[in-house]
Amino acid sequence: MSIQVVIVGAVALGPKTACRVKRLMPDAQVTMIEQGGRISYGGCGIPYYVSGDVNDVSELQSTSFHMVRDPHFFKHSKGVDVLTRTKAVRIDRQAKVLHVRDVDTGVESQLDYDKLVLGTGSRPRRPDLPGVDLGGVYTVSNLTEAEGIRKLVQGGKVSKAVVIGAGFIGLEMAEALRDMWDIETTVVEIADQLLPGFVSPDLAAMAQKHMQDHGVTFLLSQKVLGFEGEAGTVRRVVLESGVLDADLVVMSVGVIPNTEIAVEAGLEVGPNGAIVVDEHMRTSDADIYAGGNNVQVMNQVTGKPGFYPLGSLANRQGRVIGTNIVGGSARFRGAVGSFAVKLFDYSVAGAGLSLEMARRNGLDAICAHVSGFDRAHFFPGKDIIQLELVVERSGRVLGIQGLGNKGDATVARVAAVAPLLAHHPDVEEISNLELPYSPPFSSAMDIVNAVANAADNILTGRSRMVSFQEFQKLWESGERDFVVLDCRDTQDTEPAVYEAKYPGVWVNIPHNDLRERIADVPRNKRLVLICGTGVRSHEAQIVLDAEGIGGSVNLQGGAASLRRGLMNI
Amino acid sequence: MSIQVVIVGAVALGPKTACRVKRLMPDAQVTMIEQGGRISYGGCGIPYYVSGDVNDVSELQSTSFHMVRDPHFFKHSKGVDVLTRTKAVRIDRQAKVLHVRDVDTGVESQLDYDKLVLGTGSRPRRPDLPGVDLGGVYTVSNLTEAEGIRKLVQGGKVSKAVVIGAGFIGLEMAEALRDMWDIETTVVEIADQLLPGFVSPDLAAMAQKHMQDHGVTFLLSQKVLGFEGEAGTVRRVVLESGVLDADLVVMSVGVIPNTEIAVEAGLEVGPNGAIVVDEHMRTSDADIYAGGNNVQVMNQVTGKPGFYPLGSLANRQGRVIGTNIVGGSARFRGAVGSFAVKLFDYSVAGAGLSLEMARRNGLDAICAHVSGFDRAHFFPGKDIIQLELVVERSGRVLGIQGLGNKGDATVARVAAVAPLLAHHPDVEEISNLELPYSPPFSSAMDIVNAVANAADNILTGRSRMVSFQEFQKLWESGERDFVVLDCRDTQDTEPAVYEAKYPGVWVNIPHNDLRERIADVPRNKRLVLICGTGVRSHEAQIVLDAEGIGGSVNLQGGAASLRRGLMNI
Repeated sequence: MSIQVVIVGAVALGPKTACRVKRLMPDAQVTMIEQGGRISYGGCGIPYYVSGDVNDVSELQSTSFHMVRDPHFFKHSKGVDVLTRTKAVRIDRQAKVLHVRDVDTGVESQLDYDKLVLGTGSRPRRPDLPGVDLGGVYTVSNLTEAEGIRKLVQGGKVSKAVVIGAGFIGLEMAEALRDMWDIETTVVEIADQLLPGFVSPDLAAMAQKHMQDHGVTFLLSQKVLGFEGEAGTVRRVVLESGVLDADLVVMSVGVIPNTEIAVEAGLEVGPNGAIVVDEHMRTSDADIYAGGNNVQVMNQVTGKPGFYPLGSLANRQGRVIGTNIVGGSARFRGAVGSFAVKLFDYSVAGAGLSLEMARRNGLDAICAHVSGFDRAHFFPGKDIIQLELVVERSGRVLGIQGLGNKGDATVARVAAVAPLLAHHPDVEEISNLELPYSPPFSSAMDIVNAVANAADNILTGRSRMVSFQEFQKLWESGERDFVVLDCRDTQDTEPAVYEAKYPGVWVNIPHNDLRERIADVPRNKRLVLICGTGVRSHEAQIVLDAEGIGGSVNLQGGAASLRRGLMNI
Repeated sequence: MSIQVVIVGAVALGPKTACRVKRLMPDAQVTMIEQGGRISYGGCGIPYYVSGDVNDVSELQSTSFHMVRDPHFFKHSKGVDVLTRTKAVRIDRQAKVLHVRDVDTGVESQLDYDKLVLGTGSRPRRPDLPGVDLGGVYTVSNLTEAEGIRKLVQGGKVSKAVVIGAGFIGLEMAEALRDMWDIETTVVEIADQLLPGFVSPDLAAMAQKHMQDHGVTFLLSQKVLGFEGEAGTVRRVVLESGVLDADLVVMSVGVIPNTEIAVEAGLEVGPNGAIVVDEHMRTSDADIYAGGNNVQVMNQVTGKPGFYPLGSLANRQGRVIGTNIVGGSARFRGAVGSFAVKLFDYSVAGAGLSLEMARRNGLDAICAHVSGFDRAHFFPGKDIIQLELVVERSGRVLGIQGLGNKGDATVARVAAVAPLLAHHPDVEEISNLELPYSPPFSSAMDIVNAVANAADNILTGRSRMVSFQEFQKLWESGERDFVVLDCRDTQDTEPAVYEAKYPGVWVNIPHNDLRERIADVPRNKRLVLICGTGVRSHEAQIVLDAEGIGGSVNLQGGAASLRRGLMNI
């Protein structure tokens, strides 16, 4: 008799596993069960369906060649049985039986298995707040919710929306609502920055400014207390600091792994409830595999277990599980937490640890920040990317984050470093990183190399930096116990404007004239050096040090960062 | 007394080294000598200056902030002395003296050094052919030549151009001449494909078709015998097979390292004359460093010495040398030979070994080829990338090459794998490669993962492939001892058109109906399976095998490859 495989959950990991098993072992009997009515869809596409970029919800359920991946498709094309609206209720590990229930009729039945796969995914966190069950309060968990939101906005029913949570999905939803439907959109976030933990406060401020420029309002460091409605529909969001009108609320405050059935069956789970699996994606029961948003996997940077609810990892893990079910020994070695997000005309991407994450992991780290062109500076259409490299003081590279204009250039830089992070590269390896070079695609010394060089200069004490946010705090404090030494050339107009606007506080001595005009450098106050992107001011710091004028700090990323940031000078 | 550093050559490596030394040790005395009149320019930008994308030649000599990097700039801004039109004639290693000669006056003088750096670069190969010294025959070696070409084309003096050599620079020059100046442009190449050795015949054919669609003519497998002129100016190129009219000839047939001075001084050089350096970029004389286009560096894939005349590597090596001159111990660990080139609306990129290179290195390897989308298939504006992965039969990944539309998406995929190649990744690592994922930038299962999965299927014998070129040969042979089984759906129009056009040779059975229509599958001839991108035909192969219809082969990359290739069906 052929092997019997039962798969619980049919969104991302389940279908991938099922297809892989059938490809490797055509006579395997594979049954997928799904408690919802729809299967095998691209949940990550929901914001683009809400925005209208994706026209019909069926596109998120279709193959590249426009076949809808429904139970008929799986049966017909893949030889996989699918039971929708069927809930897994209990695993009998002894008997190797899965007890299931028809969601509509309540009728229970049993499925025998040789190998069981738990692709139960996760559900959005839905804090137990007053009014959370009002109409118009959505999490973004499935296509039905997506359709609900799209119908509301398309019907002109929404003039004010509140998004709770400035993580990836929250920001994508905010863009969708604001950009395509011109809805007054406010994002409420409990942390003091966007994408908390994922990017530095500097990059977060730049992303925030860009989204504000596109009409999104942000309320940071704000706690939501509840919701108020009329006739069962939400009308207001109550914050600690006041009340916001809202016809639509999107809650995107994290996800919880669906592992109750695994826990009840006695499978090992980690501290946040995610299932513990080995690198073959096997649970503590050798006949039960799990993967996707319900497992913990090793963080390849820290070596500690992590939780990465990403569709991309689910797909790869599904293939690994499929291979192993038929007797292979494929491995999923862990994750470095790569991400990308498009925010209007910006892209933000990262991998590995942010400085904050590194410190939370007890690592003594620094963060270098550079502004640099995405292609040769003489090539038409160049743009500036902000790139940050997080490095342990030992020299080991822990993470990379970047922000740039939309398009693939920023993501490409992060993608070049992300796969290396599992190999624990040092700064020198990134300094010499060999990106494919040609003027239309990169600089001879690419920005990835430049950010590693900057990190090297910080680690070796050759460079003393101040971050954009630190400078902003200094500037906004109102105290003027420092002088900004602007190293840009006189052909730039900005330095002269600022010099006139802030006499005695902002002084312009072009870098090229610094040696000759060394006597003009103010000596009684701390110097903050600034130039266009931070390169000339770095050189100025070296000249000043050599001249015995020590203690200056160099603004990381230069005026390019200031212009992208929230700061008003 | 401070350290004296003399640097021979001031184009790429020299300036980088000089600046690094001065940053680390401001009181070092650094002298750069250059036999030409111009220094510190971006030679890789020459095609874009010829095309007019870069307006003025000074832009190739400028910093990002429009300062021209001339001797005054280096003295004033960097504290580096520059002697232009000065040739290095002899190294006295005993006395640590460099003998130099003024190119204009012939006067000789001496420069003492503590550390000498040879950044002498390379010169274009200029085969000793009859007529090679006629006016209008250019190599693309420096800005003066670039200006000569630009002046000719801008003055309307050129109606027919011949480019010799279909390498990177040759193809870039062909694009520049054809695209911007509408010149009848023919590329003559001695090998039987574009970019020989760098990409597969399949990718080369696709690039060739694209350039032909933009009006460039190609003559492959053609040897140039010489040039004929009138009044000292070239008018014809003589080939073995005939004669081509030409007002302009651009020769781009490789470069020769400038190492005569090193050889004469007894420094160790490799088989092609490039200087041997250790990973600190030190020559066999510990006080003499070398880098850039005149050295050999280790190929990190093969472990053998290689020659990589690329401006990007020169810059990184310059920094390493600068660090080491002042007592550091920076390393340049080798190269994997990453490249990128823009060809009209296509980008082509690669890293590591092509299949041909792998075989030349005695490695038993295969090449997987996939066609896939550069972002989620439901996201607007998606494009198809062709990606190839070269894998040793042991499972070790040796190289990656790709072709796609212009923009950074193709380069991004190559960039994600290139840095890993030095770590000798296996196929499984690429299958699980963790690119930053979001629908606007990638698929959940990205094309990089897909090409590794395809390689895995080939290695494990689960997939039998035929390359696009193999299929083309089969088709064009005229023999019809095979049947094309087209697995695409009936909603595609192409399958029905071909079925009607080639009765009995082209048969369309949609993949989804294959199990039911298994009796319709022709059994007397070899089956070539085809679908849109190669995924459904792979599944069809598995179904056929399970049904006992073995021996079929699957067209790698599917119809997407056929459409991009040179083939006419």
